[in-house]
Amino acid sequence: MAPPRLRVGCAGLGRMGKRHARHFLERTARAELVAVSTPDETEFQWARQHLEPYGVTIYKDYDQMLKHEDLEAVVVASVTTVHAEQAIKAINANKHVLCEKPLSTSVEVSQTVVDAARKRPHLKVMCAFSRRFDDSYRDAFNKMDAGLIGRPSIFRSQTCDMLDPSGFFVAYAEFSGGIFVDCSIHDIDLALWFFGQDSMVKSVVSSGITAVQPALQKHKDCDNAVGIVEFYGGKIAYIYCSRMMAAGQEDSTEIIGTEGKVTVNTQPMSNLVNIYEPGGIRREIPQNYYGRFEQAFVNEANEFTAACLDDLKLPMKLTGAVQAVKIGCALQEAMVTGNKIWFDETGVRIERPQL
Amino acid sequence: MAPPRLRVGCAGLGRMGKRHARHFLERTARAELVAVSTPDETEFQWARQHLEPYGVTIYKDYDQMLKHEDLEAVVVASVTTVHAEQAIKAINANKHVLCEKPLSTSVEVSQTVVDAARKRPHLKVMCAFSRRFDDSYRDAFNKMDAGLIGRPSIFRSQTCDMLDPSGFFVAYAEFSGGIFVDCSIHDIDLALWFFGQDSMVKSVVSSGITAVQPALQKHKDCDNAVGIVEFYGGKIAYIYCSRMMAAGQEDSTEIIGTEGKVTVNTQPMSNLVNIYEPGGIRREIPQNYYGRFEQAFVNEANEFTAACLDDLKLPMKLTGAVQAVKIGCALQEAMVTGNKIWFDETGVRIERPQL
Amino acid sequence: MAPPRLRVGCAGLGRMGKRHARHFLERTARAELVAVSTPDETEFQWARQHLEPYGVTIYKDYDQMLKHEDLEAVVVASVTTVHAEQAIKAINANKHVLCEKPLSTSVEVSQTVVDAARKRPHLKVMCAFSRRFDDSYRDAFNKMDAGLIGRPSIFRSQTCDMLDPSGFFVAYAEFSGGIFVDCSIHDIDLALWFFGQDSMVKSVVSSGITAVQPALQKHKDCDNAVGIVEFYGGKIAYIYCSRMMAAGQEDSTEIIGTEGKVTVNTQPMSNLVNIYEPGGIRREIPQNYYGRFEQAFVNEANEFTAACLDDLKLPMKLTGAVQAVKIGCALQEAMVTGNKIWFDETGVRIERPQL
Amino acid sequence: MAPPRLRVGCAGLGRMGKRHARHFLERTARAELVAVSTPDETEFQWARQHLEPYGVTIYKDYDQMLKHEDLEAVVVASVTTVHAEQAIKAINANKHVLCEKPLSTSVEVSQTVVDAARKRPHLKVMCAFSRRFDDSYRDAFNKMDAGLIGRPSIFRSQTCDMLDPSGFFVAYAEFSGGIFVDCSIHDIDLALWFFGQDSMVKSVVSSGITAVQPALQKHKDCDNAVGIVEFYGGKIAYIYCSRMMAAGQEDSTEIIGTEGKVTVNTQPMSNLVNIYEPGGIRREIPQNYYGRFEQAFVNEANEFTAACLDDLKLPMKLTGAVQAVKIGCALQEAMVTGNKIWFDETGVRIERPQL
Repeated sequence: MAPPRLRVGCAGLGRMGKRHARHFLERTARAELVAVSTPDETEFQWARQHLEPYGVTIYKDYDQMLKHEDLEAVVVASVTTVHAEQAIKAINANKHVLCEKPLSTSVEVSQTVVDAARKRPHLKVMCAFSRRFDDSYRDAFNKMDAGLIGRPSIFRSQTCDMLDPSGFFVAYAEFSGGIFVDCSIHDIDLALWFFGQDSMVKSVVSSGITAVQPALQKHKDCDNAVGIVEFYGGKIAYIYCSRMMAAGQEDSTEIIGTEGKVTVNTQPMSNLVNIYEPGGIRREIPQNYYGRFEQAFVNEANEFTAACLDDLKLPMKLTGAVQAVKIGCALQEAMVTGNKIWFDETGVRIERPQL
Repeated sequence: MAPPRLRVGCAGLGRMGKRHARHFLERTARAELVAVSTPDETEFQWARQHLEPYGVTIYKDYDQMLKHEDLEAVVVASVTTVHAEQAIKAINANKHVLCEKPLSTSVEVSQTVVDAARKRPHLKVMCAFSRRFDDSYRDAFNKMDAGLIGRPSIFRSQTCDMLDPSGFFVAYAEFSGGIFVDCSIHDIDLALWFFGQDSMVKSVVSSGITAVQPALQKHKDCDNAVGIVEFYGGKIAYIYCSRMMAAGQEDSTEIIGTEGKVTVNTQPMSNLVNIYEPGGIRREIPQNYYGRFEQAFVNEANEFTAACLDDLKLPMKLTGAVQAVKIGCALQEAMVTGNKIWFDETGVRIERPQL
Repeated sequence: MAPPRLRVGCAGLGRMGKRHARHFLERTARAELVAVSTPDETEFQWARQHLEPYGVTIYKDYDQMLKHEDLEAVVVASVTTVHAEQAIKAINANKHVLCEKPLSTSVEVSQTVVDAARKRPHLKVMCAFSRRFDDSYRDAFNKMDAGLIGRPSIFRSQTCDMLDPSGFFVAYAEFSGGIFVDCSIHDIDLALWFFGQDSMVKSVVSSGITAVQPALQKHKDCDNAVGIVEFYGGKIAYIYCSRMMAAGQEDSTEIIGTEGKVTVNTQPMSNLVNIYEPGGIRREIPQNYYGRFEQAFVNEANEFTAACLDDLKLPMKLTGAVQAVKIGCALQEAMVTGNKIWFDETGVRIERPQL
Repeated sequence: MAPPRLRVGCAGLGRMGKRHARHFLERTARAELVAVSTPDETEFQWARQHLEPYGVTIYKDYDQMLKHEDLEAVVVASVTTVHAEQAIKAINANKHVLCEKPLSTSVEVSQTVVDAARKRPHLKVMCAFSRRFDDSYRDAFNKMDAGLIGRPSIFRSQTCDMLDPSGFFVAYAEFSGGIFVDCSIHDIDLALWFFGQDSMVKSVVSSGITAVQPALQKHKDCDNAVGIVEFYGGKIAYIYCSRMMAAGQEDSTEIIGTEGKVTVNTQPMSNLVNIYEPGGIRREIPQNYYGRFEQAFVNEANEFTAACLDDLKLPMKLTGAVQAVKIGCALQEAMVTGNKIWFDETGVRIERPQL
């Protein structure tokens, strides 16, 4: 008899939800997609066509899906505004949870998910920081962890999306939490990974511009921004986020240590093809986040599944997801106010310290 | 009710067989591994542990496996010497066949598989040239096919394995058909793909050395060899094969056209990581063929499955696999004898033509 | 009769002075090195051996050198502390001046050079920002200038020296003006070049650490630092400086525009050689600033010479060199105090503005 | 008093001659261009304008130039057909000689230059294989020479010019000796350098096509060709030459040893700039041979000068230049006849040996 497979439900079938659903349906051997939920009619019809034939039950109501027989785990891939609420409901219904990032655009709300999870320590509750599952990032981390670069000291990272002239991001900015919370959250999570999950932020400062989407200003957001995050213990992360790239998605990272450096994707490429043509040599790069990280999402699904089935430790702490939101929100605030924001060594926000 | 899945059996559980079995078990959503066969006790025990729990039936005898209830398709991943025989038996038993390369080290025997397949045109019979399923090669082909490089004229390709100091390849050379048949068969198949499946070879010449494994000479084989394959119509392929690479697997290809060039893997890398350290900047490369082409094998399994289930055209003709063996054998002979070997425009071997 | 050659004297024969002297002696066809001056005995002896045989007069006293018959131009390559004084003396003696960077570590003193030069508009007075003469930087600038990337908006640049474990930089820090004035001055100058020489700085903020040289703290300096420089008009430069690189000199720059990006040296290399070896593929990179920019220095010497002889416009304004010092000093102060420093649109320092 | 400078004359002021003249005039500190000769009126006028003002005497007659007072060295940069004759005259007139490649398109004629030089062993007589003076090639050679790749065994090299649609190369083919003698001579010389100057060729075979210039057939030449050169002692060079590149000049080389590999220019680039734009990331490459090797030519001029002045050993033997012509001519013949050409271990051409 075949070993049991994890019975998974997926909440939300938007851009990310469809991907998660498909990964658990087709590319996660030890899991079984048994249910999905969506309040959206178009998404519902998509599920009728693409999921129902494979035995997936479709719910219009999230709470109903939670009651699906023998459901063991839930992927929360809904709009950001309900991430926390749905995650907490799932936890309370005794389901494992894989929640899309961010838990919330609010630090306090994010923390409520951690609080809920703490009461059910047997559950696996993970915020989906997909880059942690990318082979290149893991290789870089392992090399650093093995001492190859000495003590990591400076961290540079960027999340840069291709220019989307449709104006989508202007509307999106109303609820996204801002570019630092929406995009840079990945870089912040990486900084916490490479510098140590319990690194304490000391100060945050940032600047932004609206180079191509001046309409973002009405949401107090920018299309390009840079920030510096100082950590206690002599570590600095500096980051760049943009929605203006011409060539495609450019998410790259450097970790500089006292004895060396590892870089990830500082020479971006889609694949191993080069084109020699009048004008020079050209290579293409991924056009969006999924183009760069598809395999990482699949790894994430498989490893989350294994963690649930085999009661393995998750690769990251849920508290880190709150830290990431905290730093992202501080960067966003610093960009809007022009202020440098300080924290003491216990993480409490303070006026600027005596130096 | 879920759509039907293709019921697959796998013959042979050596290095490649294990991989095929796992791909069909875990990474081919529309297929189901139902049976395997192996005469080897160690492989049998491996299957007991890794496959049986998932409902896979294990046979010691290939013929018995062919009788497995409702079996629809067979992967032939046994030793090269029985590829053709097993493929033909499967065809005659009305199964679809995915046969590892080469069909045989003999042109004549390879042709018998084609002959058998011709009698059952409703079956999908494919020789597993994995590079055809690699994203980079496909991208390069599509770019060429779209006219990006004009008329393809010169083709350079190499299959270069990392040095294996164990001497494994010396023993292996007794049955491998020689380095051109074992390694370069991939490059030859690519040449036929890029130049057109029906390209006719005009002449073949080659030279080889034993730089690190002089013992290969007893099998009339070499550890490094280069060859030139001229095709009718003004096209030339030149190839290099080696079992002596220091850094890892180096399989790279260039297709040079009248208006441009596409290259695949001329700057090899394992992933997107670079290491900056005293001595310079370093990147790792795949250590073996599977490290480079794992995803291509998975694509192959999925597409073969789809072709069987949906009666789709296979991406390549089976006759091409015979052409590849023919050219590989001619290169091997040219290396051993020092002769240049000529063919007329119908593919018949001739003495050197009048020029 | 051969056309006249520019008669050049070189003040200072330290690390940079020796290079300038040799470039004007051997690699500047239209110039002639006629004199050098140095108060240092070792340097004097070096000049006896390497310059005197070629007819170069050696002075111990700078003022004496200025009186050398028919001297037309002076290269100031002495210690930073006398750059301004020597440059002004040369100007007053009616000589063209190529002055090593920075003019001074003080904004006010730097300005005195500009003031002196203004009184002699027929003289060519240039601060030696060598990167302006580098082929790659020029190519990048020309591409940007031709509109290839739209409107330049974000500028990232770094000057990163290889780790020098000798502790040289600790002693050096006493007079260098600090890492932002010593190293980042180049990046700041580049930002002014790419954003426009008259760009006005709006705010400056920075953070630094002492990862490998804690002794730098006594000079209020760091071995790694990052900074953000906002300019009026929606432009941001962010920079990194380090003295801790393991692999070698890493000076790289990105200019991100509304429609594209150009990068310089984001994939560093010494030359076109790659080494394939166990462990992967490796390439070496320049070990120091001169290794990277030797040809730029030679170009600089030749173009300065041509500007003097043919009365051509210099490639950059001298006022820019004061701006660069101003921004560098502000970055250094921001690093030491933790403050964000603001300027109004006329360049006057202000308390933080109302937003 | 300044040390003496080498008094150089340059014969021929065509494309290459102009470059050599300028290098010796402006970029070779220890040499002095004192005379040039050209029978061509346009070249003569060019010299009037660009060289005469600097004191260079212009001759219409080569023999007259040889009599120029105190002339010490001659650069032969005339048309290939007179290389040997002019070189021999210069030797007999007791001048050092830097002769453009090839010495001649005939092996016998090439040998006459060697014979003449042998009688004047105090003279420096060098065939200008410019790649020997390229920093990257030298670095690769030194790494190999230091044992980094074990025993060099396989050598791949190509000389590939950008497509010149003007048809220039068709006319040029009448006297060039053919593509293997004109282009591949560099690769052959490199093979002799890396494998050892006294390596003995064992066999030669090649194939060519006319992909873009069918008119070349009337001169029995091709626009793309590949060849294999076997050397005694288990070494193989394989080469590619083309006049059809779309992106620019592509001259790249790999030397594969028993323990590693070094490559030169397998990832071509003009400089350190990358352009990110819709469609991907692009870099430009040199558009012609001089764009790639300008600095090598300058190095060549300086080192030839130093060898003459200081009586230093030249970096390569003149006999190697004859070997290179011999192999180039054999490749060209093999391409035209379709034959494989064999040599015995003393270099004598033979019928195919018994194996």
